[in-house]
Amino acid sequence: MFFASDNWAGAHPRIAERLSASAAGFSRAYGHGELDSAVYERFGQIFEREVAVFFVATGTAANSLSLAVYGKPGGISFGHREAHIIEDECGAPEFLSPGSRLYPVDGRLGRMDVKSLERAVGRFASENVHSGRPTAISLTQSTEVGTVYGLDDISAISAVAKRHGLPLHMDGARFANALVSLDVSPAEMTWKRGIDIVSFGGTKNGCWCAEAIVMFDLDRAREIAFLRKRSAQLFSKARFISAQFDAYFANDLWLETARHANAMSARLAAVIESSPVARLGWKPEANEVFAIIDKEAANKAQASGAVFYDWNVPASLAGQVADNEALYRFVTSFATTADEIDRFGELLRG
Amino acid sequence: MFFASDNWAGAHPRIAERLSASAAGFSRAYGHGELDSAVYERFGQIFEREVAVFFVATGTAANSLSLAVYGKPGGISFGHREAHIIEDECGAPEFLSPGSRLYPVDGRLGRMDVKSLERAVGRFASENVHSGRPTAISLTQSTEVGTVYGLDDISAISAVAKRHGLPLHMDGARFANALVSLDVSPAEMTWKRGIDIVSFGGTKNGCWCAEAIVMFDLDRAREIAFLRKRSAQLFSKARFISAQFDAYFANDLWLETARHANAMSARLAAVIESSPVARLGWKPEANEVFAIIDKEAANKAQASGAVFYDWNVPASLAGQVADNEALYRFVTSFATTADEIDRFGELLRG
Amino acid sequence: MFFASDNWAGAHPRIAERLSASAAGFSRAYGHGELDSAVYERFGQIFEREVAVFFVATGTAANSLSLAVYGKPGGISFGHREAHIIEDECGAPEFLSPGSRLYPVDGRLGRMDVKSLERAVGRFASENVHSGRPTAISLTQSTEVGTVYGLDDISAISAVAKRHGLPLHMDGARFANALVSLDVSPAEMTWKRGIDIVSFGGTKNGCWCAEAIVMFDLDRAREIAFLRKRSAQLFSKARFISAQFDAYFANDLWLETARHANAMSARLAAVIESSPVARLGWKPEANEVFAIIDKEAANKAQASGAVFYDWNVPASLAGQVADNEALYRFVTSFATTADEIDRFGELLRG
Amino acid sequence: MFFASDNWAGAHPRIAERLSASAAGFSRAYGHGELDSAVYERFGQIFEREVAVFFVATGTAANSLSLAVYGKPGGISFGHREAHIIEDECGAPEFLSPGSRLYPVDGRLGRMDVKSLERAVGRFASENVHSGRPTAISLTQSTEVGTVYGLDDISAISAVAKRHGLPLHMDGARFANALVSLDVSPAEMTWKRGIDIVSFGGTKNGCWCAEAIVMFDLDRAREIAFLRKRSAQLFSKARFISAQFDAYFANDLWLETARHANAMSARLAAVIESSPVARLGWKPEANEVFAIIDKEAANKAQASGAVFYDWNVPASLAGQVADNEALYRFVTSFATTADEIDRFGELLRG
Repeated sequence: MFFASDNWAGAHPRIAERLSASAAGFSRAYGHGELDSAVYERFGQIFEREVAVFFVATGTAANSLSLAVYGKPGGISFGHREAHIIEDECGAPEFLSPGSRLYPVDGRLGRMDVKSLERAVGRFASENVHSGRPTAISLTQSTEVGTVYGLDDISAISAVAKRHGLPLHMDGARFANALVSLDVSPAEMTWKRGIDIVSFGGTKNGCWCAEAIVMFDLDRAREIAFLRKRSAQLFSKARFISAQFDAYFANDLWLETARHANAMSARLAAVIESSPVARLGWKPEANEVFAIIDKEAANKAQASGAVFYDWNVPASLAGQVADNEALYRFVTSFATTADEIDRFGELLRG
Repeated sequence: MFFASDNWAGAHPRIAERLSASAAGFSRAYGHGELDSAVYERFGQIFEREVAVFFVATGTAANSLSLAVYGKPGGISFGHREAHIIEDECGAPEFLSPGSRLYPVDGRLGRMDVKSLERAVGRFASENVHSGRPTAISLTQSTEVGTVYGLDDISAISAVAKRHGLPLHMDGARFANALVSLDVSPAEMTWKRGIDIVSFGGTKNGCWCAEAIVMFDLDRAREIAFLRKRSAQLFSKARFISAQFDAYFANDLWLETARHANAMSARLAAVIESSPVARLGWKPEANEVFAIIDKEAANKAQASGAVFYDWNVPASLAGQVADNEALYRFVTSFATTADEIDRFGELLRG
Repeated sequence: MFFASDNWAGAHPRIAERLSASAAGFSRAYGHGELDSAVYERFGQIFEREVAVFFVATGTAANSLSLAVYGKPGGISFGHREAHIIEDECGAPEFLSPGSRLYPVDGRLGRMDVKSLERAVGRFASENVHSGRPTAISLTQSTEVGTVYGLDDISAISAVAKRHGLPLHMDGARFANALVSLDVSPAEMTWKRGIDIVSFGGTKNGCWCAEAIVMFDLDRAREIAFLRKRSAQLFSKARFISAQFDAYFANDLWLETARHANAMSARLAAVIESSPVARLGWKPEANEVFAIIDKEAANKAQASGAVFYDWNVPASLAGQVADNEALYRFVTSFATTADEIDRFGELLRG
Repeated sequence: MFFASDNWAGAHPRIAERLSASAAGFSRAYGHGELDSAVYERFGQIFEREVAVFFVATGTAANSLSLAVYGKPGGISFGHREAHIIEDECGAPEFLSPGSRLYPVDGRLGRMDVKSLERAVGRFASENVHSGRPTAISLTQSTEVGTVYGLDDISAISAVAKRHGLPLHMDGARFANALVSLDVSPAEMTWKRGIDIVSFGGTKNGCWCAEAIVMFDLDRAREIAFLRKRSAQLFSKARFISAQFDAYFANDLWLETARHANAMSARLAAVIESSPVARLGWKPEANEVFAIIDKEAANKAQASGAVFYDWNVPASLAGQVADNEALYRFVTSFATTADEIDRFGELLRG
């Protein structure tokens, strides 16, 4: 009953197997090997156009360098108030784009409100050296709170970006979970809706460590090579990333693991809805469930081996969480089993 | 016949196997899992004292963050003119310690000359805001050119560091190769000789990606946690590093692979010495061989499948390389076979 | 009728005169001259204890380097949402402390609300590498909106700082205006109430360019010398700053100019209160007046030569500014005359 | 007898007078006033084409931001080994272009040797992420050792820059001294010979504090506004700089002061040449004299009130300075008098 985070899981057996299988033999270093090239091409097939692909070590690196590509002195990037780049990256986005700033935008359930975004960007619209200037907008798909931007939501955000001449970044640490939730293609969820650059995460969805920056503007992409190296993010034996992605994409493993994780969240949501001591904070749309639970019941479940953590109550739930209750987050992954969830349901039923 | 670099090899079978074996199950993220803790302790046993261990993504990160721990405004670190931090890291050390500088020190065969180092540090000895001030000394063990600092060499460098109140960093991307070359213990090669912080590399010696900063001053080490996270170097599923190190240390695999790599270099050196068209640039002491070879012969060998690259002629060989010759570098690894070397020898014999 | 900003004024005649008088002769550069030393000592007399004084080029530099002294990786400084460091410095504080962030705190009339501050700092209270960690609190005295923190207000902020082990910075771009408004001594307004470091501004109060960092912790102050030089903020002919401060302090010129500026704001406030087309946004406490004025009347006044700008309506005035009205800012200085204000009053009576 | 540095002098009476005269009245801040505009235009007349002009606080800032305009990740700028940017700026150029590096180039008497420069740049010529890539070349005019690049020297350096697609920066902290030494126009010494951006210094030549970046590529220049503000280098009362430049250019005061300073160096050189205890290190070409003097004689002169400092013996003088001798630097300025020099001559004869 490990619901703490999808990064508590290890690697999917087919990822592990493929990695082992590629351990022998020699290959050019720094991402110039044959397997590397094959994987870059595979990304192109998946996105239905030529793309530039850059492996990096962490999701934080993917986000930070994506924004760095578009960085300018005095630059400000906009993201949801609860976005990972704003809340959980220790200033790495600002550090890797020196002097840049992040501006929080409000919005219900982890999605930036389009009007709030427009207003936020609008505050800085002119080239004003005192206030600084907008350089990028970032949205998280799926969001930090387990919801998903619909295609039209993305288009609406993109329209703001275009109006202000700004690039649009997608933090896709849980890209696959959103993709299967919407049941659309990667192209539809990204460049066809105005996304310019993607942090494409495989780690949370069954890889050990597989994060890539995917970029559609090939000219601009060249700078990433230098940004990455000077940030100490260039793997020498890059094929250990390629091997993971190779298995990840083979036979649509990535969609399978994401569907499984989402299904487990749906199952968990049903369990919670049927509990007398718990209710959903909001409807889960990917692989995270947020539930308001009687504290005593939650403590008991934790004492019985269920691992999950509490979460700050967002403005949208203000006044809806009683004193004896708290909000908790549950994350499911490729490794979550129906059995675990059912056992947790039994704990909740007491 | 892949002698291009030790990072062209993949992973040792026992590393790959251990990684696969650890893929199942759940574990706390960000290096707080049980396997992680066990591996940190293992480092302590290996170094014969309590140490602080921080996994990072690359050797460049290990070097850069090691120097960042000791960084100060106006800070200058000293290393050999051909050191990786100076020649091959795209300014990452300077970028991750903003405003810092690296000062090249001369010395024969990749080792800093102690007098040159003393003179170099001495130029900046006072607290002078115009020139800046020394903050660290870094030595590479084994060096970029396949030689090794003897224990007394390290002590001599350390004496300079102590005299100026400077910490001493060891770039140990090829730590094991030096260790088995000297046939000493990790403690003897590091803190017992005045080393304060080590970039401990496993990648080149049989891992996929296993780099750690090892630090002996536990108080000071706390800062690395923040430096690492803001540099986007904190792995979420850190156990994929721990699993590699676990196998690396088990049954002294790391010493075995390093001994093999060094032995292969010795064999290659013998092959070269016996060739009519080649001779050694200098005696190899670890797993790299530098040879002066007739260009035509080298080209032929390359055309026949041997992979190796030319190298800039250092000052110490000035005038000794004829017009029809060039200097080439060969790197051996755990994956190099005696057969490869013998086949290469035959190519050289023509 | 120049009310755009106190930096539209030039220099007070006694400042200009003193500067001219010091133009001849030779003096050690970089702040080591006799006049420089005398002025540093004068600062000590004014603050009633030994202080470290560092001249810098701009108020932005004074603020940024003050925070940089206390910077740590992952560091977050707290200031009022409308503070200059957050709104008007183009990311300089973040740039000069690489990777640092500023966290906006709400509060009425430009003063941080103590509970909001406590809550904001409390969000980051533990040593959490993901969220980052608090490193400093900054308050602006007088505030961006012409109000002043009372001594007890400063103590209350300082109590939060002490509770969390944080240093407390005062952005004193308008230090003198606050000082004469409170009618207290510099010591009482700073270190006796828990302030650790001050951006001491002379420019807005009658100097050409005279900004200093004043620090009470002399040990820690040593770092500023390097921070300043690497930020390209070390003047060679520093005596041109010293000469300005020398005249500024002589015969309490600085208090005289600040009193005059404040009195002019009071006179302006009276003029506005007596106008049928204008009213005060809030009571001015230093040298800035914020008034809600009928737009047509404001336009006419501007067309007749009055220079002043509109200002974003803060939350505290929400709903109180009619469609035909706007909020405007007026800044008075040593150079403002009663006659100007009376002429402006006539325009408003129009 | 103050020969320590040209920044030990104060301000020329006409500069001081003009500054005083401009102290009254109101003017737009941040360099948007009428006097500011007039001065920008004056720069255009002086350079015989439209130029972008940005005032900054120090020569270090002018150099650092000039290089920052052309900065790229992994960027390397080339300058003479003894250049101010390399030796005397505490890493400010690297700090204000995060992650950038400076590469020292050898050359006799302060001038980069063209072949050494070509070789240095050539080492990095390809787009190699490991080594980094060249981004700019910087030359100092007049040089740190009182010599001057002839127009053809500049053309030769510029040819290297063009060949490698690099911009060419001139550190003109002593621009005027070089200009009158060559007896050419500012246009001839800069853009007509391939200079792209100039650190135009007035401080050492009679101003209090007057440093400007002058740029010929007006499109590219826009970025400086943001670079400057985020580096805390934007003066609010910028007219105090404009007033200095206004007087500096009026009636060719700047050429007059530079000619005087150079003439004083020539006079000092003659004094030294005629001394039995001193001789020139090399022929002075601007306002600095380097002399080899008997230490005892030098000490006596210093004890009698002459202020000058010793200087590291460059490679070009190796073996030419006896044990009882040392190399000393003397700098003359607008404020140096013939009488001072003659008195110093008597001391040397003494």
